Amino acid sequence: MTITKKRRVKVKVKGNIKAIEWCGSYVKLIDQTKLPYEYTTVKIDSYDKMGMAIKDMLVRGAPAIGVSAAFGVVLGAMSLADEQSWDDFYFKLLKIGNYLKSTRPTAVNLKWAVDIQMKLLESYKDKTIKQAVEALEENAIKILNDDISINKNIGDNGVTVMPKSAKILTHCNAGSLATAGYGTALGVVRSAFTNDPTIQVYANETRPRQQGARLTVWECVQENIPVTLVTDGMCGYLMSKSMIDVVVVGADRIAANGDAANKIGTFTVAIAAKAFDIPFYVAAPLSTIDTSIESGEEIPIEERCKEEITHINGKLVCPDCVNVFNPGFDVTPADYITGIITEVGILKPDYKKSIKDVF
Amino acid sequence: MTITKKRRVKVKVKGNIKAIEWCGSYVKLIDQTKLPYEYTTVKIDSYDKMGMAIKDMLVRGAPAIGVSAAFGVVLGAMSLADEQSWDDFYFKLLKIGNYLKSTRPTAVNLKWAVDIQMKLLESYKDKTIKQAVEALEENAIKILNDDISINKNIGDNGVTVMPKSAKILTHCNAGSLATAGYGTALGVVRSAFTNDPTIQVYANETRPRQQGARLTVWECVQENIPVTLVTDGMCGYLMSKSMIDVVVVGADRIAANGDAANKIGTFTVAIAAKAFDIPFYVAAPLSTIDTSIESGEEIPIEERCKEEITHINGKLVCPDCVNVFNPGFDVTPADYITGIITEVGILKPDYKKSIKDVF
Repeated sequence: MTITKKRRVKVKVKGNIKAIEWCGSYVKLIDQTKLPYEYTTVKIDSYDKMGMAIKDMLVRGAPAIGVSAAFGVVLGAMSLADEQSWDDFYFKLLKIGNYLKSTRPTAVNLKWAVDIQMKLLESYKDKTIKQAVEALEENAIKILNDDISINKNIGDNGVTVMPKSAKILTHCNAGSLATAGYGTALGVVRSAFTNDPTIQVYANETRPRQQGARLTVWECVQENIPVTLVTDGMCGYLMSKSMIDVVVVGADRIAANGDAANKIGTFTVAIAAKAFDIPFYVAAPLSTIDTSIESGEEIPIEERCKEEITHINGKLVCPDCVNVFNPGFDVTPADYITGIITEVGILKPDYKKSIKDVF
Repeated sequence: MTITKKRRVKVKVKGNIKAIEWCGSYVKLIDQTKLPYEYTTVKIDSYDKMGMAIKDMLVRGAPAIGVSAAFGVVLGAMSLADEQSWDDFYFKLLKIGNYLKSTRPTAVNLKWAVDIQMKLLESYKDKTIKQAVEALEENAIKILNDDISINKNIGDNGVTVMPKSAKILTHCNAGSLATAGYGTALGVVRSAFTNDPTIQVYANETRPRQQGARLTVWECVQENIPVTLVTDGMCGYLMSKSMIDVVVVGADRIAANGDAANKIGTFTVAIAAKAFDIPFYVAAPLSTIDTSIESGEEIPIEERCKEEITHINGKLVCPDCVNVFNPGFDVTPADYITGIITEVGILKPDYKKSIKDVF
């Protein structure tokens, strides 16, 4: 991938953080694997580069990979613009869509976004390929813009359950970097901070990959939101010392019964929150809810490579011969979740019913 | 400190791991900050070097720093051997003892070992300084040897509560490196493995400082004990998938009511274990029980430097301006503890009573 911009992040980024930017014939992604050491954007000008960027987590976070995959379909369609027949165009693009969906298994937004694009495509079968490509592009831009306004609505809804001077614990990164902008869990934090500058964020560092230490802390620092970095194992201690009022996390997939998959470690935080009777909220757009599955048992959990645990910044942190178990996600059962903060309101238990009602 | 030995650990260490070795006029310590990258021993030939070694965690683990402090008193006494009067000798050594006790606040074994030495010293006030120094040396050697046999008894007692083919989760390192040898929690693992080679250990990496990834994994690899490295946040997921049968951890101080301080993150594991009804054992010698305090509320929790979280292997892992909270320990309340495995047997609730009975 072509590196278009690279500098040490000593100063702040000007304006809003844009994890994903459409530039007419390519996507500009912030390379999130390099943050906060380097602020680098990469030019993604083909669907296979997009697939690699999702797989290698240059872009991550369920909503963000959904938006990226929608543009991946556009890039695929553009590469097929000279196909002679609609069928060739359609079936080749279908294959590209399936490839994009396969890049990461847990987040449902990937499937959601590709399926929306493919459904749109079907409605263009009587039009020209050129018209279809244009429609896909327009739709991807709409998905991107919608995601930002959805997140702002999630933020507005989340504020209503944040106490005054809230001490908010979050795990992983569900911020601007994990979405088209503003964020889900960090969207709630952003709205809460706008509303009440006395809030405080506790960011779990989030091993492995440190999305909390690297990305959540970086986002908070950009906007002067007070943030304290802690290790993942500290949550029990913090809660026992009344240092946490509320937990807000994102989600990669939510089942029809409210069970929510999110970055590994989330469930442990939820268990601790329940033990101390601390509200535990999941903030996610409706597109993260997968009504096709009944419970979290059906959510595929991605197992990632051993090096995510054995190496940090490319350096070995343990004996090299060790066996490792590295599930990328866990599932927090619905009965640990106080509410699911969506763009249409806060869903409450019984989730089977409340989720059914909004769909 | 003089580096006496340094090599890359590709091969195994011959014989038993000796974290602390008395060499007649100095102590040889394995530098645990360098493991597993380098196997380095350092020569500690003065009490202030011993204080630094404890403070900087070249040696760590409650029993190990107790033994080290006992030898610290010996090194102090040797440096005062030419004092003209008993009083000068005594009061200067008392000051050295107090200095050694101040190096780390949470582990009670440090105080315990220094106090034992000072008590012995008092009984020598009618003898010569030379005789007192010899007695202190002999006593420190006894404390070291006793610690190994105590740990073997802890191991034997612990085996009785390990199920067949036990999948054992441990946090931090309470092994040979944390003691004079054999270990407390890892002593139970060692005895269990001798008894049943089908056991499996899950080692929490233990952020910050990675004593699990660096030390526990290294110890298990030395002895071919099957070990899988996981991150601290995974315990909820592992337990929900029936991957853990039992948790065994060490302790830095246990109050008269059974509340147990141990490396930060332990309490979160205990909360998860309770949620899944998984036995949670603390393995520790009686010297770790501080009957002078009623509950864990009175245990001082050391706050350590921010760099332990912001840096790994000397490299920054987050934006450098971030605020950090870094308590070194947490306290697991007695009602989360299934049993305290000691050298005299397994103490069970009500701990107030069972602890009182053994003292």
